[in-house]
This record gives sequence, structure tokens and C-alpha cells, in this order.
Amino acid sequence: MKIISSTPKKDGFYMPAEFSPHYGCIMIFPERADSWTYGAYAARKAFVKVAEAISESEKLTVCASAKQYENARRMLPERVRVVEMSSNDCWARDYAPTFVTNGKELRGINWGFNAWGGLVDGLYFPWDLDDKMARKLCDLYDIDMYDLSSFILEGGSVHVDGEGTCITTEACLLSKGRNPDLTKVEIENFLCEYLNVNKVIWLENGIFGDETNEHVDNICTFTAPAEVVLAWTDDPSDPQYKPSQRCFEILSQSTDAKGRPFKIHKLHCPAPVLVTEKDCEGLDTMDFKPTRTAGERLAASYVNFYIANNAVVMPIFDDPNDEKAVELLTNLFPTRKIVPVPARDILIGGGNIHCITQQIPLVE
Amino acid sequence: MKIISSTPKKDGFYMPAEFSPHYGCIMIFPERADSWTYGAYAARKAFVKVAEAISESEKLTVCASAKQYENARRMLPERVRVVEMSSNDCWARDYAPTFVTNGKELRGINWGFNAWGGLVDGLYFPWDLDDKMARKLCDLYDIDMYDLSSFILEGGSVHVDGEGTCITTEACLLSKGRNPDLTKVEIENFLCEYLNVNKVIWLENGIFGDETNEHVDNICTFTAPAEVVLAWTDDPSDPQYKPSQRCFEILSQSTDAKGRPFKIHKLHCPAPVLVTEKDCEGLDTMDFKPTRTAGERLAASYVNFYIANNAVVMPIFDDPNDEKAVELLTNLFPTRKIVPVPARDILIGGGNIHCITQQIPLVE
Repeated sequence: MKIISSTPKKDGFYMPAEFSPHYGCIMIFPERADSWTYGAYAARKAFVKVAEAISESEKLTVCASAKQYENARRMLPERVRVVEMSSNDCWARDYAPTFVTNGKELRGINWGFNAWGGLVDGLYFPWDLDDKMARKLCDLYDIDMYDLSSFILEGGSVHVDGEGTCITTEACLLSKGRNPDLTKVEIENFLCEYLNVNKVIWLENGIFGDETNEHVDNICTFTAPAEVVLAWTDDPSDPQYKPSQRCFEILSQSTDAKGRPFKIHKLHCPAPVLVTEKDCEGLDTMDFKPTRTAGERLAASYVNFYIANNAVVMPIFDDPNDEKAVELLTNLFPTRKIVPVPARDILIGGGNIHCITQQIPLVE
Repeated sequence: MKIISSTPKKDGFYMPAEFSPHYGCIMIFPERADSWTYGAYAARKAFVKVAEAISESEKLTVCASAKQYENARRMLPERVRVVEMSSNDCWARDYAPTFVTNGKELRGINWGFNAWGGLVDGLYFPWDLDDKMARKLCDLYDIDMYDLSSFILEGGSVHVDGEGTCITTEACLLSKGRNPDLTKVEIENFLCEYLNVNKVIWLENGIFGDETNEHVDNICTFTAPAEVVLAWTDDPSDPQYKPSQRCFEILSQSTDAKGRPFKIHKLHCPAPVLVTEKDCEGLDTMDFKPTRTAGERLAASYVNFYIANNAVVMPIFDDPNDEKAVELLTNLFPTRKIVPVPARDILIGGGNIHCITQQIPLVE
């Protein structure tokens, strides 16, 4: 593995859209008992469901700690590769490299990671093992790496169409805990240079209560060029109402890098998913404090799905809106099997299916 | 990774000779302070020299613990892949899978490992992480595996010519700490079935003081079909004299699987390499006991070399015989570069260059 001091744009490398063909996918096996209820047993089962669906049509590698390796190997299908790798938690989207390609070669980008806000409003301490994963994964896949570890960014905070457009949120990228010394323009320049895009669409906010400072991948994602789904609610009393309205306005008034207006599909959120007393009783403390409070609203959204080669693996919440969400994605992805996975046991950790996956584009 | 319940012989898979073309090689980064003097700093440098030489002509993967990963990545050349993997110590020859092939596909064999003798005369406790490495490595390389974990065998205790012949030692394979319930014939049958050989040559002993119960890879190895080097001394007062004489007799009276007599090259041992007071002062204890004693003779032998695609990486000992050993190997391997590595810092751990490597054959 070589460290490349150039940038993807200079070298003709770019980040393809998630709906483009994949070589494979990376996940991390969940373990920490202050993130995952009741020793993460239920979380592991839910992750395995996701892994089963993804590995049907692409090569999945699951990273497991030395302690969980054997358990992961036993629970996951034979076709999944399990490798030992240490981490602080299991959000592959945010720690794994962002993969870029020139169509022939694959490279990785190592962004800095500070647990979604570092000492300002980060979610745990320390985060050193997570921060080192991108580099270790580039080594594992034996690919060269662009090192931008001085710039804090999580994979879940940006979406691209592979045709020059990036969507992100101000709430996250302009947060005080990430790159407080950079202006919006400077941040945008980094995105353009490393993702190799020439247009960045800035949404303002994401999903209410999303503790990542409102990653875009929970509220809005590309389903095709110039086509997005947007997390939605028609209830004006819901704190999600205004943020979603505002996203709609911004997207309606924008065009993508190729000048096309967006087709926006509203994906209605489930009813609020709340933390229960029982959840709290099954969580270890962090820094002597409980990590969840009964009644707390989790950032539930159907948008946090993963687009695999032949499947869309999507979260469902035992909610009346599940069916409508499945129907919409079925229409939007006619060549893919829609695989709904009951996802409360993932959501309790703070993210969802998209957050626990990272695709690797297919190259020649 | 699938576990295959058949055997290599039944499936037409065999273990190629080490002098056949390799895809790559596996090593493990040294760390434990009761095996390696002064915190393993010197051992790591010596391992890196070996890694540099091997990786010039084949793809080398070095497994490092989570703690040593970063250090390994820094010390090793870019062209070497470093992966996280936990182990108890670093003898890749003895824990990594034995790789077999049918010329098109690669598979691994997972032998049982019990630290060279388990509770009878094993060298450390526990050995669980080492024992699990073969399986993890098959997973890492995404190949299927024959599981013979019920049969205790280390890679260093057998050598093959890739043409039907295996050489081993009775001292090791018939030791009480490995497979005490199996007869010599039953053990031979396992070798024939899994290495896919039809002739096993049983030497009696290996190198004097070799704490592996005298692995063959320290006393005798194939340099070509029907051609071996044998560790040697002309000094009748040396405890190595008789074992080497006996090996010579057995080999002289044997033919290989194809009926060819052996051409035997004598590789004169260095003068005894002894453990010093200073070595002992730089070793942590194990189970409250010192692991080495000043004056103890180490199992120094030039035979413990590694045959890479374009190099032979061989141990030297700052001894007058170094030059003769280099000369002999230069003659025996005319197409390969002979790379002598000062190896005392490896030998102190109980083995040498061959012991810390495991080749992966090249397939189509």
C-alpha cells in the first residue's frame, strides 16, 4: 500500500454512485455493550441478516475483533469473508475508506475520523481504532491510499451520483466538532477534489435527533442520476416536518452537476421510535453515564438503506409505513430485490443499515 | 470459506515443493517478550530483513497484533501487506495452513497445533490463538479448507518434494505430546492422504537441542527433486554428530517416491551458538520461570532457509562456516539470489527463517 500525495481529481479517480456495480462491501461486527443493548446479541443477529442479503450479490468482508472473530465466523454465511480488525464500534460507512476509481484501478481515501465531533460533541472516546481502519482496509485490499486524515469527514455525511454531484448537510459538515477552522468554501473544495465532483448541494438539516450531527445518508440519497428519495412527514407538529420541507425546497430549486432538475420521491418516516426502559436496562454505561434515556427519540428513517448489486437492503420498523416504503423502493429499483430487515436492534446503536456498510466499486 | 470434509488426495490436491513457484508468503510480526529478547526490538528488525528479501519476488502478507500493527506497517516495505491477526507467538511455518493445489485452485489444511507438545512438553500455554490462525488465514485468502484439527502437526515437521515424497523425523512426529494414540503407520497415512504423497522417509532425529522435538526443517530439506541438504558436523564429540550421521545413512539407503536415490549435500553447522547472560537478562519470565538459561545451546543450522521465487533467504551466525554455507546454496540455487541474514536474533526465539515463513503456491 502506497500513500499518494496527489488528489483523486488530479489523477482522474472519482467516487462512483452506490447504485453503480460493486465489487463488494465491508461491514464490522458489533460488540460494544454501551452502544448495543443486552451485550449486542440482538444487534449481531440483525447485522447478520444484512450481511446475508448483501453477500448474495457481492463479496462481503466482515471485520471482527479478535474476541468476536469466532462468533462472527459461526454466525455469518460461508460466502462472507471474516477478518480480524480492531475498532471502537462498528460503523463501516464512517470509518472505512471512501473508494475511488478511474475505471481500472481502485484506491481508498482516508478521511480523519473523530467519533462525530471529537471533544466538542463526539459520541465516544477514544476513537483511535476506528480512525485507523481506513488505512488498515486499504492495506487489506492491497490498494493505494489518498491520506486526508487532517480533514474530518464520515462516509455517511456525503452522497454522490457518480456524475459530478455531491449532496451533504450543513448541520454536519459545518459543525463545530469537525473542521472548525475551515470555511464552507474550503470544505466544498475538499469534497470536489477528493470525491471528484463539481457541484455540492448543501441541505441544511437531516433527521431530527440524528446524533451524527444529521448525516445526509439518513435523510436523502440518490436512487438514480437526478433522482433522490427524501425522508418525509406530513405532520406539521413533528420536529421532522420543517427540516424535510426545507430539504425539499432546496432540492426543488437545485439542478445537479449536469444541469438536470431532481426528481424527488418522498419516503414517509415511521412513527417516532422511542428508547424504552428495557433498552436502557440492557446498556452498559459510558464514562459512568447512561448512553440512552427512556423516551428518547431515535433517528428512524427508511432512507438509510444499502444498494447492493442485486438487492436493496432496507430498514423496517414494525410500522404501518413499512409497506409504503417497500413499495416505493420496489418501484424505484425494478432490477433489484427489496430486502426489508427489522432494524430496531440496529437503530438503537444510533444508525442504520447504510451506516453499517461501505461499498467497494467494481473495476475492470 | 468452506470446510471440506474430503481429503486433498481424494480431490487431486497436493502440497507443492517449496522450490516450486509461489504466489506469496505469510509471516507473523514478533512481539512476546518471553520469547524475544529486550522486547523483541532486535527480532523485529531481523524479521523485517527477511520480509524485505522475500517480498522482492512474491506477495508477502505479515500478520501483526492490534498492538503491533502500526509498528509493523511503519517498519515493513510498502509492497508488503500488513493485516491484523492475533497470535500467541510468530511461527508462521507451524500455524499457517499448509497450502495444497490441483494446479487451478488453492486450498488450505488446518492441522491441530498444541505449541509443540501440548501439556506434555509444549513450549507455552495457552496456544489457542496460534491454533486458530490456519482457519483465519484460509478465510483471509478466501479459500476452502480441509480441517484436520484433530491431528497435531506443525508445518515445519514435514518437507515434500511435490512429487510424492515427504521427509519427516520420528523424534517429532512420534513424540508423546502430539498424537500419542496413533501408530506410526496411522500417522504416515495422514501425511499421505493430506500432503498427497506416497512415500514418507522417516529420519530419526533433527538438530540437537531443537525444542520443537526436532523438526525436519532444521536438519534436512529438498533443494530439488531427489536432492537434499543435510545439517552436518565432522566433529565426533559434537552431540550433533550421531544424529546427522544417522540421517545420512537413512537417506543414502532410501529412494524417493519415484525410485530415485538422493543426492545429499552436507551443510556444515556453525559452531555452537550459546545463550548468554545478557540474553537472559532481556527476557521476561513465563509462568514465573526464566525461558532461557545462560550457556544453553541453541539449535543453529543453515538448513532453516526459505526458498522464495527469486531468492534463498538463509540464516548466518557470524561464524567461519557462513561463507561455505553461502557458497553451497549459491551452487544449489543458480537461478536465485542468496540473501544471508544475520539470524541470532531470530534463533534466540527457538527457530529460524524457515520457521517464520509459510509459502503459498502459485496457481493458474
